[in-house]
Amino acid sequence: MKNKAITSRDVDFAQWYTDVVRVARLAAYSNVKGCTIMEPNGYALWEEIQNKLGGMLKATGHQNVAFPLLIPENLLNKEKELVKGFAPEVAWVTIGGQVELKEKLCIRPTSETLFSDYYSQVVKTHKDLPMKYNQWCSVMRWEKETRPFLRGREFFWQEGHTVHATAAEAEKETYDILHIYRTFLEDTLAIPVIWGRKTESEKFAGAVYTLTVEALMYNGVALQSGTSHYFGQRFSEAYDIRFLNLDHEMEYAYQTSWGMSSRIIGAIIMVHGDDNGLIIPPRIAPIKAVIVGIGEDEAVMKAAEETEALLKQAGLTCYIDRSDKSPGYKFAQSEVNGIPLRIEIGLRDLSENKITVARRDTREKIAVSRDIDLPAYLEKLQNDIHDNLYGRARARMEQLTFVAKDKAEVAAIMAKQAGFIKGDWCGRHECEESMKEISGMKSRCILEGVAPQIGKCIACGAPAKHAVVWGIQY
Amino acid sequence: MKNKAITSRDVDFAQWYTDVVRVARLAAYSNVKGCTIMEPNGYALWEEIQNKLGGMLKATGHQNVAFPLLIPENLLNKEKELVKGFAPEVAWVTIGGQVELKEKLCIRPTSETLFSDYYSQVVKTHKDLPMKYNQWCSVMRWEKETRPFLRGREFFWQEGHTVHATAAEAEKETYDILHIYRTFLEDTLAIPVIWGRKTESEKFAGAVYTLTVEALMYNGVALQSGTSHYFGQRFSEAYDIRFLNLDHEMEYAYQTSWGMSSRIIGAIIMVHGDDNGLIIPPRIAPIKAVIVGIGEDEAVMKAAEETEALLKQAGLTCYIDRSDKSPGYKFAQSEVNGIPLRIEIGLRDLSENKITVARRDTREKIAVSRDIDLPAYLEKLQNDIHDNLYGRARARMEQLTFVAKDKAEVAAIMAKQAGFIKGDWCGRHECEESMKEISGMKSRCILEGVAPQIGKCIACGAPAKHAVVWGIQY
Repeated sequence: MKNKAITSRDVDFAQWYTDVVRVARLAAYSNVKGCTIMEPNGYALWEEIQNKLGGMLKATGHQNVAFPLLIPENLLNKEKELVKGFAPEVAWVTIGGQVELKEKLCIRPTSETLFSDYYSQVVKTHKDLPMKYNQWCSVMRWEKETRPFLRGREFFWQEGHTVHATAAEAEKETYDILHIYRTFLEDTLAIPVIWGRKTESEKFAGAVYTLTVEALMYNGVALQSGTSHYFGQRFSEAYDIRFLNLDHEMEYAYQTSWGMSSRIIGAIIMVHGDDNGLIIPPRIAPIKAVIVGIGEDEAVMKAAEETEALLKQAGLTCYIDRSDKSPGYKFAQSEVNGIPLRIEIGLRDLSENKITVARRDTREKIAVSRDIDLPAYLEKLQNDIHDNLYGRARARMEQLTFVAKDKAEVAAIMAKQAGFIKGDWCGRHECEESMKEISGMKSRCILEGVAPQIGKCIACGAPAKHAVVWGIQY
Repeated sequence: MKNKAITSRDVDFAQWYTDVVRVARLAAYSNVKGCTIMEPNGYALWEEIQNKLGGMLKATGHQNVAFPLLIPENLLNKEKELVKGFAPEVAWVTIGGQVELKEKLCIRPTSETLFSDYYSQVVKTHKDLPMKYNQWCSVMRWEKETRPFLRGREFFWQEGHTVHATAAEAEKETYDILHIYRTFLEDTLAIPVIWGRKTESEKFAGAVYTLTVEALMYNGVALQSGTSHYFGQRFSEAYDIRFLNLDHEMEYAYQTSWGMSSRIIGAIIMVHGDDNGLIIPPRIAPIKAVIVGIGEDEAVMKAAEETEALLKQAGLTCYIDRSDKSPGYKFAQSEVNGIPLRIEIGLRDLSENKITVARRDTREKIAVSRDIDLPAYLEKLQNDIHDNLYGRARARMEQLTFVAKDKAEVAAIMAKQAGFIKGDWCGRHECEESMKEISGMKSRCILEGVAPQIGKCIACGAPAKHAVVWGIQY
């Protein structure tokens, strides 16, 4: 039986997505054009992401800070590539306190400019380095389209900005962060990814190179899930960040920046969700289990409360659904909300000294004795659910990854089913551009350390330099 | 011996404040006019505040959300008092994506408008109520002055917005929140406060009434530390938030809003700090203890590492200062940074099976045997430090609270020493206004349930209606 408030994902995936976001109360459209509201269920996910990913960043020596929301025009203009990349899509404040401003200020689309300006003031010698700052904030880009979590004018993210005394250390940081993103996506969100280097035309404006992790949604569309940029000395030269090096000479510093955004909530929805709603991977779930009593009997309520106390004591976040709805409604609601585990307590089970545990991923119901160590059992079950979610997403990604030797083959594949296309590339911009003819397909990344498979460019047939993954994207 | 980088607070309090903020690396001025940067030490305090106060709000059923940064002009204009209060000091976005906007958008100075607009869409019946939302974000008001944490164009806060089915429930919420703020300030930040109701001219624009908690800084200047507003049906009428009540009639809902901001970090600095720098109350300290080894001996480093491991295992955040500075420099640094405890480990102490614990509040050094239960001892010591910080702040507040019968007396007191002035008030606006002649003094709050002490208005001598606390403020 499927949830009637949710369109089937195989019938209309875009509508399914919108339905899940609405019915699970993750986000709502606002009367502010281009901006959505993160409702409690959506924001709770974002808080868990901040806790878990933030913990990984702190554990590796990154420190949280808060930089200004606004950037004066002259500061934005200092790094030419960056301004070219972002100036067309920023929002400008031109009036403050009822007075027209002498210099307009943009709402940050990203904060390299502000961090670089700060670093230019505080970095003096190699002893000050590295500085590894991060901030959790929202940024604004004047998008035309609005899709909750995926696209909109304002979105939430973390942006890390680091400065180092050597190129090698900054490059290591760029890769270390990518590894943190991969680990977080795979081990916490149960989302398998591919990773690699962006092509010149897809890299971040102003970067020497950009590393990326890319995930594949249920419908075969890619989602860029985190990027890590190596800047070399490009920003330090533009913003004059110099330090006294070990040779007692002034040297321009080496920088990185990197970010993961609230889009990742869209990935959680689209990788794991099903026709009954959201499925939250257990390690990121704000609530691990909901307890539903069947019937009004005192014995049922007593058992529910005992179970709640037992689980809470073990640090497992849960609650009893005490609403005046039917058990069936409550079951459906816990599924819509994607809560990993449901514990059903009824008189019949109790008479056999049992309760029923339902797992959200498989919708399987398991009768368990009340004598077992329930918290330990549920702990293990959560790991099973994680493994199952990861495993089926990985199998799907592999199923939807196709090797193609030329554009005709790509077009034939994409006509049937979107997915990752592995295809070699000669490295020329024109060939990359020409791939857009097929459903607007772009390069996702150049696979690092992987030799071209077929040896000929997917677009022109010339000798290939790179193994590339292509795809259409959100 | 005092820290030479910090001006004495009795010589120049404003300069002392600026010095502490700079030397403890709490915040820095940015090249964005009116905006400061929260550096790692400052932001770590803000994160602790978010954790602790946020935990109290969650425990009382409040849910975190994220609403848009921008407010369209027409939405801001719906509640007349609010727009009168805030329109003069907002920043307007007039250009987005290189196009002049048809309707300008302001950066939120506060978000009653956005929450009310949302509630008008989702609140249908009494079953939907109450809704108790909160968000942690930054807001912008086009201030002329910039002082880190105290005043500036952008500041951080939490803003709660709740909607209820009855006036009684909404009023209870208004008082409950004030109680949470008082408890947080006193029990976590060790900051004693007075509390009461704002006068008509000092209340929030659009509120029926505003409750406030007010703290007194070392120099006798007041700092409004948290406010809680009861709106009655004013916003629900302006934004059309109606619900089907128990009598099956449509009724306008009852609302509250309330906020505590990053100004509270300014209060921590100015209530507890001394000439050696910051003093962080232990319960909000991101780092509870720093460990300093004296000398390079292997036995010292081994003991330092053992101590660190022991404390971390007990959940007490600490680190070994491994910088290549002298012990004296490290001691001073731990004091500048306001870390509640310092553990000094030297060969002489070790030969007697001892280590030295220094507490930041009294700068007292205590030699303790290595055989005691150190984590338990430090836990108790932290409570002692909290009590001592609270006690001395409370004693100072009482010392600096004066009763006055008329303006001549107030002027005489204020000429010597700023502080809280308890003085009765007839309730007339002119009298309140006339108090500003004395150093710009304003009413801090009307004490609730406290009868006038002298019985005559402090300004005009007419029969008094209210016991009021007056003061000058940040």
